Amino acid sequence: MVIAMMNGGLDGSKKSSRFGRDVSAYSPVQSSRLEHRPPLPSVLNGYFTLSHGPATSAAGDADEIQKLFPNMFGQPSVELVASTYPALKIDQKLKVGVVLSGGQAPGGHNVIAGVFDYLQQHTKDSILYGFRGGPAGIMKCKYTEITGDFLYPYRNQGGFDIICSGRDKIETPEQFKQAEETALKLDLDGLVVIGGDDSNTNACLLAEYFRAKSIKTHVIGCPKTIDGDLKSKHVPISFGFDTACKIYSEMIGNIMVDAQSTGKYYHSIYKKGILVVRLMGRAASHITLECALQTHPNVAIIGEEVALHKQTLRQVTNYITDVICKRAARGQHSGVILIPEGLIDFIPEIQHLIAELNEILANSVCDEDGRWKQKLDIQCRTLFESFPCSIQEELLLERDPHGNVQVARIETEKMLISMVETELLQRKQEGLYAGNFKGQAHFLGYEGRCGLPTNFDAAYCYALGYAAGILLHAGKTGLIASVGNLTAPAKEWTVGGTALTELMDVERRKGKNKPVIKKAMVELEGAPFNKFASLRELWAIEDQYRSPGPIQFTGPTADETNFTLLLEMGAI
Amino acid sequence: MVIAMMNGGLDGSKKSSRFGRDVSAYSPVQSSRLEHRPPLPSVLNGYFTLSHGPATSAAGDADEIQKLFPNMFGQPSVELVASTYPALKIDQKLKVGVVLSGGQAPGGHNVIAGVFDYLQQHTKDSILYGFRGGPAGIMKCKYTEITGDFLYPYRNQGGFDIICSGRDKIETPEQFKQAEETALKLDLDGLVVIGGDDSNTNACLLAEYFRAKSIKTHVIGCPKTIDGDLKSKHVPISFGFDTACKIYSEMIGNIMVDAQSTGKYYHSIYKKGILVVRLMGRAASHITLECALQTHPNVAIIGEEVALHKQTLRQVTNYITDVICKRAARGQHSGVILIPEGLIDFIPEIQHLIAELNEILANSVCDEDGRWKQKLDIQCRTLFESFPCSIQEELLLERDPHGNVQVARIETEKMLISMVETELLQRKQEGLYAGNFKGQAHFLGYEGRCGLPTNFDAAYCYALGYAAGILLHAGKTGLIASVGNLTAPAKEWTVGGTALTELMDVERRKGKNKPVIKKAMVELEGAPFNKFASLRELWAIEDQYRSPGPIQFTGPTADETNFTLLLEMGAI
Repeated sequence: MVIAMMNGGLDGSKKSSRFGRDVSAYSPVQSSRLEHRPPLPSVLNGYFTLSHGPATSAAGDADEIQKLFPNMFGQPSVELVASTYPALKIDQKLKVGVVLSGGQAPGGHNVIAGVFDYLQQHTKDSILYGFRGGPAGIMKCKYTEITGDFLYPYRNQGGFDIICSGRDKIETPEQFKQAEETALKLDLDGLVVIGGDDSNTNACLLAEYFRAKSIKTHVIGCPKTIDGDLKSKHVPISFGFDTACKIYSEMIGNIMVDAQSTGKYYHSIYKKGILVVRLMGRAASHITLECALQTHPNVAIIGEEVALHKQTLRQVTNYITDVICKRAARGQHSGVILIPEGLIDFIPEIQHLIAELNEILANSVCDEDGRWKQKLDIQCRTLFESFPCSIQEELLLERDPHGNVQVARIETEKMLISMVETELLQRKQEGLYAGNFKGQAHFLGYEGRCGLPTNFDAAYCYALGYAAGILLHAGKTGLIASVGNLTAPAKEWTVGGTALTELMDVERRKGKNKPVIKKAMVELEGAPFNKFASLRELWAIEDQYRSPGPIQFTGPTADETNFTLLLEMGAI
Repeated sequence: MVIAMMNGGLDGSKKSSRFGRDVSAYSPVQSSRLEHRPPLPSVLNGYFTLSHGPATSAAGDADEIQKLFPNMFGQPSVELVASTYPALKIDQKLKVGVVLSGGQAPGGHNVIAGVFDYLQQHTKDSILYGFRGGPAGIMKCKYTEITGDFLYPYRNQGGFDIICSGRDKIETPEQFKQAEETALKLDLDGLVVIGGDDSNTNACLLAEYFRAKSIKTHVIGCPKTIDGDLKSKHVPISFGFDTACKIYSEMIGNIMVDAQSTGKYYHSIYKKGILVVRLMGRAASHITLECALQTHPNVAIIGEEVALHKQTLRQVTNYITDVICKRAARGQHSGVILIPEGLIDFIPEIQHLIAELNEILANSVCDEDGRWKQKLDIQCRTLFESFPCSIQEELLLERDPHGNVQVARIETEKMLISMVETELLQRKQEGLYAGNFKGQAHFLGYEGRCGLPTNFDAAYCYALGYAAGILLHAGKTGLIASVGNLTAPAKEWTVGGTALTELMDVERRKGKNKPVIKKAMVELEGAPFNKFASLRELWAIEDQYRSPGPIQFTGPTADETNFTLLLEMGAI
């Protein structure tokens, strides 16, 4: 049987999966996941009604949010409670659209499955339209009708390829008009927006727009992002974070054991030295923090802390170098350092350099002789020239279409390795260091965005989708699906919806007030960071590496969540 | 319970794991693996005797091998067969040493566990010494006595850190003498060498040396390498290959799904483009081939094929570029390409450049103005200057202590991306390509060497160790533990030992005949490559990506092996 399962896909005669996946080509694990039934919160297994909370406000500048959302502002959050009678009409027919917006996150397919299954089981003859390629699909009215057969290959699978995502946003008046035309053309009762902070803000703007124009289309959001920075009191975690962190931690744990397996006893000339791992995660350092809690690296840089103390690159370098020297003095010549992708955003001098480069390069060309560097101020020039040439190239060449440096493409880990190497050479000359530093760079990013979702993310996403279906059926709009009590078994999870305006604040952009759902940054007063801070000095010196291993879908470890959630919820 | 399991290790009061692992700090998966009992081949569960095959020869130059191994040459291979009486004395006390040699591979700890458990269960009061830090531990007589308690935390765990490995080899007369002193001092009956081709060759030389000097110490080898290049008729696979390929394939599968989830419908300016993944694996391309069979990339370069056709870098570049252009013409703007780390070894012009660089840099310094480049011949200079500056830096700076370019540290994937980008620009100007190529580089290496071994590797290694213990108990020397029939369930595996001389050939080095166990390269006539070759054109154009997902330890997929083994054994 094992051989039969493995053989799937080695036969060349399968149709192209360009227009849908071919399950006969699935790996054994993919196939077994198709049959997995995510557990539903028990409140969803019987009759329920919607219980309404008090009127809500906003995260900040409530007056302005109210002005921007006259219809949406102040809505109460809702929670489903068990009931003896069904609150919603089972024979209602709904036409619902669903869209994936922004970067991928494991579990997105299960949100769609949750919406679909809800409609199938609790409404009659409903239609689910999947807009293709993100919000651009709404604007161009490009969609696919999602049927049971169409959906089946994507159940519990990673990726977003059922309908794909996209980065376009519905922002300008013309774009809102296009969305309106699509909503009217398809006679949509509802739209589920599966996205991050920007996408959910726009979902609420769309809800407001439709309501203001008396268009019946309701809009419900779902909290997606592997970065973990979309959360609030009622939105405990964004989906995908659990899976992504576990994939990264599996890899980090492996390379830690690798570091421990060489150079423990002998001063080997081939030792691998210090592993510096840059982790995806944009501005906030939640992923780095969670991975640190899972794997216990010798150093983990938390960007929010760097920002609070206004640390310079030199200070970050020195901190890392101090740890390396202490360890070397104890005969420990290897080590593991985690840095967040967003680190660069927190260091003012690098921001300054990038701003200068953006300015110069907007107006002139990088001549090969390097005369353009004369335009940099001396501080920027010194910093720039201290970087390895590959970093210099990245700073000059990795630009987005607006001409700005694509920060995500700067290999910060190499930048730090280079600076640490220089500092260690210096200390060696001063007799303060006797080791033979060799930095090894790693970047963990795309591997984590599309893995098969953990049991947790699979169940969480399924419940979110189900909740979104319920909220639309109940006539709600401008809410984000909320599933809570997540540190308990899935059967005990709470299900409801939170007013999107409750998450919002106002930012000034180009002279206008823009509503934003602020990214939840790592709270330096919060339990996850405090746990890390209480252990990091021990981890710096003692090798307390922890190897989470590969995500398991069956067995005693299959339903675990993550440290960030457990600590924030006070479960540990 | 899940919360309790997760909490392990977040308490800071555990002792340092520098001198042994702390199981209370284990992750839930690590903990559950501690309790895993690898299945033993059933022949090992009852009485057995050793059945001897015919006299053996050598893989090449048998006369010379016989001269180099007068005592070891020609030994028959042995296989255990069920018997009604025990062939070996159960009350025998043995003193056995075990050593890990060379790079890490998942499952090494289980080989040691197999030796230990065999001695515990079938001999009396035996002692197992673990030499620390590889063969240097034998030479310096640095060892740890392996007890049940000492061993316990390492059962079914990844890594080599129980005693660590090292790259020193016992080669010179002085080193043989040191090994002899250690063997006599510890009164060793046997030594198990867990290593790759070089280490097993040296194991046989040591066996010969001890026999020639009438020293009682017997030497048995075990076939380790994730590279998969240590195999023969009786050694179907080297341990660690299964696990490493599955870890890499998990990551490749994830990034493939990521590629499919963006850019399928819209020509996105943020598309990720072509993923080029360089895979660890030294000279042979077994890992790349296995990962291709597991994930179905659009292109996989097999070094042995490049060598056979004497392809230039330009030809490899053109092949990749042709595929990219064909796909772009069909609207497919993303793609996945696998290249083996050893590719560089197969391309003569790069070898020539490296030889020139080694020569020049042995004798002069790289002046900053680049005048040193004038010493390169024009072909080399053109090639060198065509590379991105980071590759140029690597070619100049990444040198081993002998001053030679460390080929493993050249980011070949970036070299290829750069060459493909240049070629595509050319074709764009010629109107032959309309896409927007963006190469994304990945390297998968260290993540795969120390992962938790799959059930297959865990059982294979345990059986290998058990077999090594039996062979020593039976008074054998100069054999490599052999476990076969691996595509059947573990209970049906065969167990025995193969004469190491049977795997050997002779190479001429520095005017002397040296015995070598030749690396098994990918056989272009073999079933795995033929399967790949029959499907690669389909995979180039149709997206038939396959996502193996994370290694599972329980459930229906937990005991699968790998395509290379299944195809070579004719099981599929």
